[in-house]
Formats: sequence, structure tokens, C-alpha cells
Amino acid sequence: MNIALDAMGGDHAPEAIVAGAVEAARIYGVTVSLVGQPNVIEAELKKHDTKGLNLPIVPASQVIAMDEKPAAAVRAKPDSSMVVGCKMVKRNEAQAFVSAGNTGGVLAAGILHVGRIKGILRPALIGPFPTLRGVCLILDIGANADVRPEHIQQFAIMGSIYAREVIGIEKPRVRILSNGEEAGKGNQLVIESYKLLEQTPSILFEGNIESKEIPTGLADVVVTDGFTGNIFVKTAETTARLMTQVITEEIKKSPLAMLGALLARRSLQRVRERMDDSHYGGAVLLGLSSLVIVAHGRSNALAIRHAIRVAKQAIEQDVLTKIQRGIAALESQKAAVPDESISI
Amino acid sequence: MNIALDAMGGDHAPEAIVAGAVEAARIYGVTVSLVGQPNVIEAELKKHDTKGLNLPIVPASQVIAMDEKPAAAVRAKPDSSMVVGCKMVKRNEAQAFVSAGNTGGVLAAGILHVGRIKGILRPALIGPFPTLRGVCLILDIGANADVRPEHIQQFAIMGSIYAREVIGIEKPRVRILSNGEEAGKGNQLVIESYKLLEQTPSILFEGNIESKEIPTGLADVVVTDGFTGNIFVKTAETTARLMTQVITEEIKKSPLAMLGALLARRSLQRVRERMDDSHYGGAVLLGLSSLVIVAHGRSNALAIRHAIRVAKQAIEQDVLTKIQRGIAALESQKAAVPDESISI
Repeated sequence: MNIALDAMGGDHAPEAIVAGAVEAARIYGVTVSLVGQPNVIEAELKKHDTKGLNLPIVPASQVIAMDEKPAAAVRAKPDSSMVVGCKMVKRNEAQAFVSAGNTGGVLAAGILHVGRIKGILRPALIGPFPTLRGVCLILDIGANADVRPEHIQQFAIMGSIYAREVIGIEKPRVRILSNGEEAGKGNQLVIESYKLLEQTPSILFEGNIESKEIPTGLADVVVTDGFTGNIFVKTAETTARLMTQVITEEIKKSPLAMLGALLARRSLQRVRERMDDSHYGGAVLLGLSSLVIVAHGRSNALAIRHAIRVAKQAIEQDVLTKIQRGIAALESQKAAVPDESISI
Repeated sequence: MNIALDAMGGDHAPEAIVAGAVEAARIYGVTVSLVGQPNVIEAELKKHDTKGLNLPIVPASQVIAMDEKPAAAVRAKPDSSMVVGCKMVKRNEAQAFVSAGNTGGVLAAGILHVGRIKGILRPALIGPFPTLRGVCLILDIGANADVRPEHIQQFAIMGSIYAREVIGIEKPRVRILSNGEEAGKGNQLVIESYKLLEQTPSILFEGNIESKEIPTGLADVVVTDGFTGNIFVKTAETTARLMTQVITEEIKKSPLAMLGALLARRSLQRVRERMDDSHYGGAVLLGLSSLVIVAHGRSNALAIRHAIRVAKQAIEQDVLTKIQRGIAALESQKAAVPDESISI
């Protein structure tokens, strides 16, 4: 199994990226192809013991920065690590490509150099969100800042297939993120998407969901535009970190509380582990015809290691074939019984 | 001081609303006029000791439910508690109106029966968000699900005036909520609003802000559309509650940790108090020509009590005159030096 990794992308590239690759190659026994500037990568690799690990370097002379305009950068830099990585999965030289770089850049490189699954208008980032009952899949969490109702409809279809085929939920319950649970609440996009989702027979649509209901496990799949989804995910991460900080501050004010925290330290460690998003690793860019995983821009080595784990599992579970098969089944239904309500 | 309260609005109306009014009248020494169906309110008042408290009943025969279409409901129900409450502040029979009812309904009733400050296109809900350095004001947190860039510009102007005049921040730093900190990141609304905000001389605009930077105190005022703002605020609330639940679960698994939690209980209580949004009470509906405060739909008695406290403080600080004066100053500047970049 060969997983291509964008060694140049991310807030902490290349240090954290290469460090994560070394960990992943050791722990998961996979080949991690480091895509980027060879001298930079070699210098990082020297900091680690890489004996016996499969960490080939794939040269790419250009780098797409975090703040570059995605589409323009991808066109202007054909030898960037992002473009080279996408071309590797397209030619099946690697079974997945992982990048913590500019999300818009990965999306643009993916659309241009990997290509979409037939019928898919917009690939979307799907990420798991922990609930008290298990996990809720949210898409789009950042690929498309502006979308139309027909895109949301496709997100719902792709998310349902992913939940069924990858997570094993027989009838995934789908809801749309809104500012109120009642039908009719929401912005124009939500209100129009709601109508379209109601008329989509291939999904089990159960209406609006407020963010407060996501942790209760009310839905298996939550659809939203990539702007709102991104704000949702980042706000949840931030609040969890803020709360940890507030707890630490308050405990430090009292010696008795500090003793208490010492006694409870293993429990508090488990809380940190449950809330630490480094373990989620990465989000699959669903709708491309090869596997592309987007890791958080601020990924540390642990997050990169877990993003590679997500890629490995997606390869083992054959996520791509399952999604393609699910979309193809919908397409053939459409061909047999023309159904205007499905606009894919 | 007379504060009108919508006794019929909110998930826990009328019980929690009347209970909160009784507490507020006792603790803050204000008159709270209970607007709604007299028999219902009287039945609730009987559950409390109201001796010596000023809690007059103002009859309103109709109720606007949480799930009604706002504008239509306000037109169809001229004797609803929301409409009657708004008319009271318009006629200055009360100095503020507080409602935990359907936010869209309060907004519609406010626009129709209170009226906007001259020049204001859309009133916006402004709410305080705790940061590690103090407080950040966010608007709109729920009044307008769909807005245009010129509305965002007005939110920035109103928010700046509020921060300066009410909170006492001399030069409030304004940012726009986005999915990336770099200029150019965001959805179409953010990108277009950004350009307009850059050209607004009456505010100190410092660019985009990601939700993760709000708790660090990077901005004094954060502007956003009411849909995104609402998702942001609710997600933060929800994550804080979820984390409390996770901590409790993990601690209960170990007797040693339970002892630890017992020793740290006063510190944990302070954490709960710092994170409990019941203490924020309500958000001011900025841009109306009388004071209207919107409390959370799920307000309990404590939240209602604090919403009345917010109203009392807003009256004492003369928030309304300050905002009107600030807007008027901008208007007169506009008249003196025509500036197309300010579209109010």
C-alpha cells in the first residue's frame, strides 16, 4: 500500500508532516511517498530514525502556500507537491493522497488532475464528529464556501452512501444544519435545499438540525455548505480547547483543587483524548475519482499520522469503489425511470 | 423603571418566564409588566410570593408560537404579546421590551411596531461572547438569516458604536467571521463585505477572523450574517455542555477521580458559572428606535432574570440614545461630505 503525502502543505510543514509520516510508516507499516522539494525533505528525514521504513521521496519543485488563490495557484504551479500528488493517485502510483495544505488548493488540484466521479458536481469534505452515541458525518466541512441546493442534495446522497458502506449504518438519517429545527427555518439556501432533499428518494431525510442536537446523535449525516460546516467544526474544536484552559486556570487557583485534579488525572487525560481532534486526522474529499484526504492546516505530527491512518482504512474499506457504485446505481435508476428530482 | 416582558414567548413559557420576572422584580427592584393572557399569567403568579413586587399584567389575547412564520404571524395577530409589548415601548409606556419568543417574530414586530433608527436597513442581534481578555461583541447572532454586504457594513458601524459607548472600548477592533484568516478567504458574502468594510472610515476594520481566534480576544466586534452567527453561538454553547457531560462521565468511572472532583468542586463550580450562558440573559436588537432584548428560546427562569438585568443596564446606560447619536453623527458626516462608500 502506497500513500502519497504532501510534505510541503500545512502550517507546520515540512517538520510536522515528515515527522508524522515517519510515525505512520513505523506504526501502520505502509509506504508513505513524501511529495515535495527533495533537499527540504531529506533534511527533515535526517532528524529521525527511518531504518527499515518505506519513505520514498517524490520530487516536486513548487509549493502552494496557505494563502494563495487556489485555482490560480494550481494552474500556475504544475510541479507543486499538490499537483504531483494528485497526478500520482490519478495514475494509481499511490492509492491515496494526503495533504494538510490550502484546502481550496487540494480541491482545485483534485478537480483538475484527479477528476470527479461521473455525475458529481462538487466534491465535498466529509468529517466525523463525535456524538454521545457514536459518530455523525458532516459534509461539506470546507471544500465549497458557496453552494447551490443541488450541491447540498448530492452531499446528502454521497454522505448516505459513505455512512452505509463505510460506517455500516443501514439507513442513515440525514438532516440539514440550520438555525432552527422547525421546517421553514434557515437561510434561503437551507429552505430551498430542504425542499429538494424531501424529494430525494434515495436518502432518509428527517429535516433540519440545530448544532445543539448533533452531539445527541439525532442524525447520522448532516449536510451544510462548506462555509457553515467549517465554522461549525472549528467553533466546536475551539470551545473544547477554551474550556480546557478555563478548567486549568480555575484549578490552579486552589491547592485543594490541584490535589483533586491530580487524583482525577487519568480521567482528565481520557477527556482530553476524547476531545482531541488530532485523532480524527483527516477528512475525505468525497466525489473525486481517487482517494484524497485533507488534513487540518494546523496538523501536528500526531494529526498527520492519523490522517495517514484514515487513508489506509479508506483504502482497505475500498471507500472509493463503494461510493462510485452507489452513485452509478442512482445514475442507472435515473436512466430507467427518469426522475427530475435527482439532478445528478 | 418599567420593563415589559413577553410572558407567552419561549420554550418554557409561561412558567419559566413568570418565575424569572418574579426573581428580577425582587432582586433588581424594577417593575416588570407581564404581557400576555391574564388568566394564564395570574395562575403562574399564584405559585410565587409576589408581595411588595411590581408585576402588573398587560393583557394580550394572542400568542405567536415558536414555529410560526414571523412576518405573517405578526400581521395576523395584532393582539399578540409580542405586538402589544412592542407597542408599549414605542409609546414609552415601558423603557424596554424583553421576549424569549420566536426571534423572527420579535424582529418583525419590532420593525413594524417599534420602527428602525433612521438610516438603519436591518436591525441585528448583538451578543457578548466571553474571551480570555474580556468580551467580544458578535452581531448578527440570529435576526437576519440572509443579508447583503451593506447590511454587514451597518452591523460593523452599530457594533463599533455599541462597543465604544456601552462597553467603553475607545477604538473597537472590528473583524468579519470567515473560514480563513487571510484576505480573500470566505464565501461570496464575506469577500464582498470585506471590500466594503475596508472602505468604511468610521470603523477600525482589521480583516477576517476565524472562530478559533474569537476567544483569544483578537477582535472587539465580530460581524457576520445572522445564520452563521447563530450557528457559531449555539455550537459554542453546545460544545461547552457536551464537554461538561464527558468530564462527568469519565470521572464517574473512577472512585479516585470522584474524590478528586469533590476536592475540586468549588473550582469546577466556577468553571460552570463562567461557561453557563444563562448569565448572559439576552441580546439587544440593535437598530430599533426603542430597546428590545431577545432572550434565548430555551431560557429558564435564571436566563429570564438576567435578560431583565441586561434590559435594566441598557436603560441605565442609555444605550439607545448613544446608538442614535452615533448613527446621526455618521448621517451628518455623509450630508457634509458625500461618501458613497457608506450606504446607510
